[in-house]
Amino acid sequence: MVEILTKERKEDFEKVQAILYGKQTHEIKVSDEVKKLSSLYQIEVVSCGFNCKEEQLRSRRVIRVGLFQHQHPVPTSSPIKETRDATFKLAQQVIELASKGGVNVFCFQEAWNVYEKREICRLRFAHEKKTPWCEYAESAEHGPTTSYLAELAKQYNMVIISPILERDHVHGETIWNTAVVIDNHGDYLGKHRKNHIPRVGDFNESTYYFEGNTGHPVFETEFGKIAINICYGRHHPLNWLMFGLNGAEVVFNPSATIGELSEPLWGIEARNAAVANSYFTCAINRVGTEVFDHEFTSRRWKICTQKFRTFLWVQLRSCTKWVKNSCNMRSVRILPGLSRTKNGLLIAELDLNLCRQIKDHWGFQMTQRLPMYAELLNKVITPDFVPQIVTKK
Amino acid sequence: MVEILTKERKEDFEKVQAILYGKQTHEIKVSDEVKKLSSLYQIEVVSCGFNCKEEQLRSRRVIRVGLFQHQHPVPTSSPIKETRDATFKLAQQVIELASKGGVNVFCFQEAWNVYEKREICRLRFAHEKKTPWCEYAESAEHGPTTSYLAELAKQYNMVIISPILERDHVHGETIWNTAVVIDNHGDYLGKHRKNHIPRVGDFNESTYYFEGNTGHPVFETEFGKIAINICYGRHHPLNWLMFGLNGAEVVFNPSATIGELSEPLWGIEARNAAVANSYFTCAINRVGTEVFDHEFTSRRWKICTQKFRTFLWVQLRSCTKWVKNSCNMRSVRILPGLSRTKNGLLIAELDLNLCRQIKDHWGFQMTQRLPMYAELLNKVITPDFVPQIVTKK
Repeated sequence: MVEILTKERKEDFEKVQAILYGKQTHEIKVSDEVKKLSSLYQIEVVSCGFNCKEEQLRSRRVIRVGLFQHQHPVPTSSPIKETRDATFKLAQQVIELASKGGVNVFCFQEAWNVYEKREICRLRFAHEKKTPWCEYAESAEHGPTTSYLAELAKQYNMVIISPILERDHVHGETIWNTAVVIDNHGDYLGKHRKNHIPRVGDFNESTYYFEGNTGHPVFETEFGKIAINICYGRHHPLNWLMFGLNGAEVVFNPSATIGELSEPLWGIEARNAAVANSYFTCAINRVGTEVFDHEFTSRRWKICTQKFRTFLWVQLRSCTKWVKNSCNMRSVRILPGLSRTKNGLLIAELDLNLCRQIKDHWGFQMTQRLPMYAELLNKVITPDFVPQIVTKK
Repeated sequence: MVEILTKERKEDFEKVQAILYGKQTHEIKVSDEVKKLSSLYQIEVVSCGFNCKEEQLRSRRVIRVGLFQHQHPVPTSSPIKETRDATFKLAQQVIELASKGGVNVFCFQEAWNVYEKREICRLRFAHEKKTPWCEYAESAEHGPTTSYLAELAKQYNMVIISPILERDHVHGETIWNTAVVIDNHGDYLGKHRKNHIPRVGDFNESTYYFEGNTGHPVFETEFGKIAINICYGRHHPLNWLMFGLNGAEVVFNPSATIGELSEPLWGIEARNAAVANSYFTCAINRVGTEVFDHEFTSRRWKICTQKFRTFLWVQLRSCTKWVKNSCNMRSVRILPGLSRTKNGLLIAELDLNLCRQIKDHWGFQMTQRLPMYAELLNKVITPDFVPQIVTKK
């Protein structure tokens, strides 16, 4: 394949593309109004759709999801309130834009209205900046971000997924990494707390928040059953699996990660989850570069000598689905991505009927032998577990 | 990325390559004797290695694995005995070649000494050809294939994984899809029966054999802890997981599948498993085209009108590992693949110490919350399971 990539012949390239991305998706035309707003707000728009066969007993269940990737709108040294106001303004703009593009379910990146959480979680940084940055945390149910987005959700008839830092006023005012789901009538539907918390090198998110305790909720909306697998949870196949077993048709994966850390994984994990669980996965990441006015620890336990550091070098994530297409070839399709540096909105049209069609075709659910694995995991988690190792007698 | 691929500039291509494959692996030089035998036996040889840091308390544990992909050496109409003799001759050649290349653990493709099992499992075909093709099935412990390979294993000091059709003489003479492991002293070490059996369209392998009952054994050899995830099991993350939980350092995935069916998945599933479980995965597939002298059912429930059908259009699978490399970037590395049409041997040099280094770095095992999932799966498998669905109150 590598050899082919280096050539320039069109047919070779198309072959490579088909292997890498599955059959191409089709572009969806957007209105002049969308183009106008896209230019005015400087938010790039990409729009695509997946094909799906018609069924005899079920009507098509076509929805549009909007995946938004953005950079922080103000310098990192800005006061908390000023920053929040700026992010709210950006939210208003992109949700208006998404609405004109027919979006039904909209999702922001992880901790979308906060500075890159990866940085606030660095060990040295974490101590120095914990005040005032903890002030970003707010009630999932009644906080200013949820209240603000609820108005927009109602106005634009759109389900909004809002990943924030949550302040749990009921349980000791602890902080969580939480995705809030607001329905298209502007009502708070529920929340999901990040299940798997990274501790990698000198970057330890558990300095701020702990493993989530809300299970694997699937939210039944007017536009399908949706779930959220927050950031590092994408490395855990069991996390993806449980959302599938609870009936999710679309699983969003809002992240805030850096290309340097894991970029070669980005094209693999969410796509593998789509394949294994026969649902759509939508991965979103932060874009651009953030600059700080002070030193902080590096990824390698060294104090960074540079005063400014461009730590973000992020990239597309896109909506992936394992599909069966019209010409009788099964493939993993992936939609084109967005810019690494500019604010961008991906609008994807999905027919949710595709999920069950794929299940019926491949039978992964029927053949997955869950009782065996439930029994095995029960054994694995005991302290005296003896692995099944075959040694020479 | 797609835009970049279409360009021809070298630096762009290298960037794309790094994203798609992780940092490049290094070539391993093979001797003139290997080149000579490669030419004589017409078996293409590709050889590569992964880097790994030295440790203070553990010595390097460098092994070489040999992954062999071949086409059937005689026409499909050949008698059983003649076919077996031809495959045995091929085995002798490639194992001699692998030995000269320093291979310690060698693995054949799925059902390596039988015709493409995909075809013998087609519904119509299955009935017409069940006799004489069931005659291929033999004892895992004492059958002619195991006996023949045991001699080679001893002669060449090589662990050999031999995926065959097994005849279970103890339990009603049933047939299994089984991988036999022979150690480097020529002793039978154990076997693993394919855990997940496909039933896709008119292709139903359970016409011949059923879901395996040997769990997820990991074989402790002089060259590390190895396991085998046979073919369709690669679609099941729990199958990969259990091999990891049992301590596997290298998991082989011998397959016999067609590109038309699932090629866009080939670069995803085994790599995702390597990432999630911090072990090496080695995927092998059948190559070339097989031609039959009679009609058989197609994948779409239609009788094929062609007398001959080229059903195989297969491709590389290669050894994948999630590695941390010397220049401080984490990546999924994948080795170059082999030809789709010619017999080929991939020799990969691995330092098994890398597995634990990766675990210590990323902490996926520590953060995977198995007790939660064991509890959840116990609930899921009950007939009255109520999924965690949040609906509006």
